[in-house]
Amino acid sequence: MTDQSKIIRSEQFTWPGIKRKEYKTEGSGFKGIVRYVILGEQEDEQALNMQTRYFEIEQGGYSSLERHQHPHTVVIAKGAGSLILGNEYRNLNFMDTVYIAPGLVHQFHADRGSSFGFLCVVDRDRDRPEIPENEEALKQWITDPDVRKRARI
Amino acid sequence: MTDQSKIIRSEQFTWPGIKRKEYKTEGSGFKGIVRYVILGEQEDEQALNMQTRYFEIEQGGYSSLERHQHPHTVVIAKGAGSLILGNEYRNLNFMDTVYIAPGLVHQFHADRGSSFGFLCVVDRDRDRPEIPENEEALKQWITDPDVRKRARI
Repeated sequence: MTDQSKIIRSEQFTWPGIKRKEYKTEGSGFKGIVRYVILGEQEDEQALNMQTRYFEIEQGGYSSLERHQHPHTVVIAKGAGSLILGNEYRNLNFMDTVYIAPGLVHQFHADRGSSFGFLCVVDRDRDRPEIPENEEALKQWITDPDVRKRARI
Repeated sequence: MTDQSKIIRSEQFTWPGIKRKEYKTEGSGFKGIVRYVILGEQEDEQALNMQTRYFEIEQGGYSSLERHQHPHTVVIAKGAGSLILGNEYRNLNFMDTVYIAPGLVHQFHADRGSSFGFLCVVDRDRDRPEIPENEEALKQWITDPDVRKRARI
């Protein structure tokens, strides 16, 4: 199939032509988060080496605490939130851009009084995320106790 | 150099740690447009296979009319504008997402009463854009006369 150019319309941080998905279909360690794969998944988008996703976390929710070898490019598009990034805990605001280098543990939190939405671009072909098996493993992943106490697994 | 995770802060659609660049350093056929390469160009971002750029066009301006084999992923981040996409002329609004497939001619216009800003993600390694040499060439690129009269070269 030849790739087709297209405009994918947005309405209030939804994309009516794109199905809203569960964040993950298995596992736990996440809360109140949805996912749209806006571009890079369809049969007529095969020239793209990357996928563009939008994640939205409702107030009080969080993504998986995870690490993987593929890097992340993240651009904040809605509201504000926080990020565990290795041994750091940082706030994030509109249009702030995050580079998550290979292997670094991370977790997004909507803990700043609003829902929190961000675009996340990744390679189409990528490794699966790894999550800590238990609290003992978490101590290896995040050595700073103040940051670790914010983590949810 | 090992890649470093980082947060690139934004203020009002600028990224103070990132230098604002001219859109292109040579050629003509564009007007009132600036460029930020937010991610994917630095030495400590080499795990990224893509670059994330932000372009902003002031009211009345436009990007180059061009085509190339690398695909574009574009997400509208500020204001509203229009896009020549092959033989179509389409409006674009906040968070609308565009897939520009290989080879299709395109040109962004800030012609809807505001400045117009968009994120554009591309492969790090990509071909150079081709532009039409003259009005005769343009007739081959854009066959619809109503769309063609909106083109600027």
